[in-house]
Amino acid sequence: MAKVKLYDTTLRDGAQGEGISYSVTDKVRIAQELDKIGVHYIEGGWPGSNPKDMEFFRRMSKLRLKNSKLCAFSMTRRQDLKASGDKNIEGLVKSGAQIITIVGKTWDMHIRDVLKISLEENLDMIRDTVGYLVAGGAVVFYDAEHFFDAYRASKEYSLECLLAAQGAGAAAICLCDTNGGALTSEISKVITLVRPEIKVSLGIHCHNDAGLAVANSIAAIEAGCDMVQGTINGLGERCGNADLIPVIANLKLKLGIDCIENRDLKELVHLSHFISEISNMRTKSDQPFVGDSAFAHKGGMHINAVMKNPKTYEHIDPELVGNHRRILVSELGGKTGIMLRAKAIDLDLGKEDPQTKKILKLVQQLEHQGYHFEAAEASLELLMKKALKIYGKFFELEGFRVVIEKQSNKKITSEAIIKIKVKGAREHTAAEGDGPVNALDNALRKALKDFYPALSKMKLSDFKVRVLDEKAGTAAKVRVLIQSQDDKDTWSTIGVSENIIEASWQALVDSVEYKLLKDIEEDKPQALNTKS
Amino acid sequence: MAKVKLYDTTLRDGAQGEGISYSVTDKVRIAQELDKIGVHYIEGGWPGSNPKDMEFFRRMSKLRLKNSKLCAFSMTRRQDLKASGDKNIEGLVKSGAQIITIVGKTWDMHIRDVLKISLEENLDMIRDTVGYLVAGGAVVFYDAEHFFDAYRASKEYSLECLLAAQGAGAAAICLCDTNGGALTSEISKVITLVRPEIKVSLGIHCHNDAGLAVANSIAAIEAGCDMVQGTINGLGERCGNADLIPVIANLKLKLGIDCIENRDLKELVHLSHFISEISNMRTKSDQPFVGDSAFAHKGGMHINAVMKNPKTYEHIDPELVGNHRRILVSELGGKTGIMLRAKAIDLDLGKEDPQTKKILKLVQQLEHQGYHFEAAEASLELLMKKALKIYGKFFELEGFRVVIEKQSNKKITSEAIIKIKVKGAREHTAAEGDGPVNALDNALRKALKDFYPALSKMKLSDFKVRVLDEKAGTAAKVRVLIQSQDDKDTWSTIGVSENIIEASWQALVDSVEYKLLKDIEEDKPQALNTKS
Repeated sequence: MAKVKLYDTTLRDGAQGEGISYSVTDKVRIAQELDKIGVHYIEGGWPGSNPKDMEFFRRMSKLRLKNSKLCAFSMTRRQDLKASGDKNIEGLVKSGAQIITIVGKTWDMHIRDVLKISLEENLDMIRDTVGYLVAGGAVVFYDAEHFFDAYRASKEYSLECLLAAQGAGAAAICLCDTNGGALTSEISKVITLVRPEIKVSLGIHCHNDAGLAVANSIAAIEAGCDMVQGTINGLGERCGNADLIPVIANLKLKLGIDCIENRDLKELVHLSHFISEISNMRTKSDQPFVGDSAFAHKGGMHINAVMKNPKTYEHIDPELVGNHRRILVSELGGKTGIMLRAKAIDLDLGKEDPQTKKILKLVQQLEHQGYHFEAAEASLELLMKKALKIYGKFFELEGFRVVIEKQSNKKITSEAIIKIKVKGAREHTAAEGDGPVNALDNALRKALKDFYPALSKMKLSDFKVRVLDEKAGTAAKVRVLIQSQDDKDTWSTIGVSENIIEASWQALVDSVEYKLLKDIEEDKPQALNTKS
Repeated sequence: MAKVKLYDTTLRDGAQGEGISYSVTDKVRIAQELDKIGVHYIEGGWPGSNPKDMEFFRRMSKLRLKNSKLCAFSMTRRQDLKASGDKNIEGLVKSGAQIITIVGKTWDMHIRDVLKISLEENLDMIRDTVGYLVAGGAVVFYDAEHFFDAYRASKEYSLECLLAAQGAGAAAICLCDTNGGALTSEISKVITLVRPEIKVSLGIHCHNDAGLAVANSIAAIEAGCDMVQGTINGLGERCGNADLIPVIANLKLKLGIDCIENRDLKELVHLSHFISEISNMRTKSDQPFVGDSAFAHKGGMHINAVMKNPKTYEHIDPELVGNHRRILVSELGGKTGIMLRAKAIDLDLGKEDPQTKKILKLVQQLEHQGYHFEAAEASLELLMKKALKIYGKFFELEGFRVVIEKQSNKKITSEAIIKIKVKGAREHTAAEGDGPVNALDNALRKALKDFYPALSKMKLSDFKVRVLDEKAGTAAKVRVLIQSQDDKDTWSTIGVSENIIEASWQALVDSVEYKLLKDIEEDKPQALNTKS
């Protein structure tokens, strides 16, 4: 059993971050990724506070997590009700979550100035809420809001709050530096003093307002905590929460604490990128451990030394967290990745095969232009198969025109006109749509439908646009990611251009070609060549 | 005299960051800003290593700094020469810098595997280099590269290196965590042990590879260091150096250490933005103390508490560092949010005013449709002013048409044709662009430029697209966020539609109207009404 448990709150505290807004589907996908990597607890949301979170718990109750336990969050009961009569509390029970996390006040100033109740009443609220839930059979974690401010103001009272929760049956107590203002030395000192008082699991929850959230989390564990709360990439309100990525890496690699498996540690880069992508946030190239620049060497003297002994300028082996060294002058490596990807789709490519080198070069060129194949494996597969001449074109574009028209306050209209050559014929057709890309998508399908009826079985299920170089304003490059699905599979394709319509067109074409190629391969795996 | 001295290396270590490249003029401007805020030491560069840095020192020798001393950096002499015959060392002397900083090896592994010399020879290089410069009258600081790795490997030898520099007359010794891999607890422990051995000033130089650079710097000072090295915004190689912004703020506000004046502390936001701008890097909205989101409140419960007592969710008064509180108006924020936002832009709106209720309802409806005003404060301001009939239209759209055309494999083209009424006239014009939105932007500006010449002063600086309901594929709704700026301000506007062109159009129009309204208000605050 792991000595330190990971408690992820990306879905609750992380979602409070400015600019973040997850759909229920996003939340389910995030929970599944967290489960894969072996996070012990996943805080899913506040079921009482909004219908979206309630829907999330409903959806999750039908799924099975392999590693993680799901937690539902709420605060202590309303001051004018008993816990048994508070709808928020009932929502927790209904959520079906395996663990219920209750946050309560701890700071006398907060209780006095905001709740405007007596300190004793607050203790009652803690005891009543935790006790009621425990009596109903729930496993309850208690989050002591503002614990470090509270302890600074009154050691006695802040401890009383913890003991009230412990006495009422809480299975874990978590100390929150809600405002993120505590220094690392203070965190260490306070936890050393508090630890002996707590007989159950003791957690730490830090915010980054002083730039210390990761250090404070590590220091808390060194001082005796056995649970750490945080979010992937440090998402969260104001300056964010403790970033679980460096927390996990430091625990594993610096303190030798087995909080996740070694093989899952290698997934940190992937997890971080996945969360950035789904949150529509940029990856931070200087993010510790997983950033693109984290093991990038620029100066000649450093490069020279790293070649002689990597330890000279790398604090860990980048492979341990799924990252890699980058030599900024001449990019090395990457052939292994291509080879492994090829293997995954049953292509026979050796590491020293000249084709491997050719594909790697193409991938590097395209990624330099803004492509990002990690998020678009169908496009990568097509690229490899095209390079290996495994398939030909299914159709050829002669041209398209998209016209968007707005008259005064009338509804805007979009129309696409398309001319293609397909199986020797020429199709010239047009369609409308809800926007220019939708019109183009409709026109392309209309042109192809008689030749490839299977396309009616496929639909676009996700469409993402990211601006790559915001500095350039509306002339910036955009990256379009399209996810498509049929009754069996889901696949992602990509396009990059200064023109959003061109980028969308590339991703649309890849999506259609992937579907057609897939159908052929499923029918007759031996005959891969098609003619346009 | 300040108890802790600030040593800024933005111009040397910061310039090693991926993507950063300063001109000599940039470097001079940065040095002047650092001087203004009262940084004690400014490391200007490595005069021996390149002509640009030499030119920088030449330019600086003609300027007078009010507060800061300029430092020139180099490494210990070449192993095959005496210090007196090493051109690098001569470059330092010629630079005219007030302080010379010499970095030298400390780690036995590094000396053995990379330098391939004996440990004794390395000590000689330290003694000879420092001694030679001191004998020539220089004030010399000594940076012990990899000190913490070195200490882990051999306490004795690493200390010998420090004592060699001290014995040769160094005025300060700086302990470098070159690879950024040390934990905070280790930094504290090692410095506590080393401090008694060093009779001169003791500095700390941290990197952020483990996400701990700020915490490690603070812990080092608590353990006895009296000088801290870092860069503004944490710029630097790999994951960057310790960010001096939170280091300074924590020293001043948490430890009460007077490293800069209170009035200069208020300049931290400005300094951080200035460095981002000149480095062509984005500001980080979640940057501790100075980020745009650092004091932003989103949830209604937090907003409510902050109104009663700001200490509930703010670890410091934002004004102390030149920042300000932001109440993010969202459906969660309620009437208080609207009222406070109104107050911030000098509109008189009471919480119970029927207008407040009307605006809140409008905001809620729009947010339900996918608008997101916390990210588009200029659009919110226009919405409020429109609701209060404070301004009229600056122009009226009669219609536009955007045509995107692609022929076979030729480059795609985008053209926008626009018809508007403005100040009684009718403009009908057209423009091309890199994509449909850029074309529309160009056409709108072209149509307006004779009537509102001030628009030439404004530019779009950021453009974001988010798909709101991915499930619907290419027919999904999109949200466009545009950031614009002129020589004084930056503002954000929003548009939402199923059609990306329509959404962009809304955000473009808001951006232009905000600029025009802002100019009028700045000129004559009494006369807000304009006629289209």
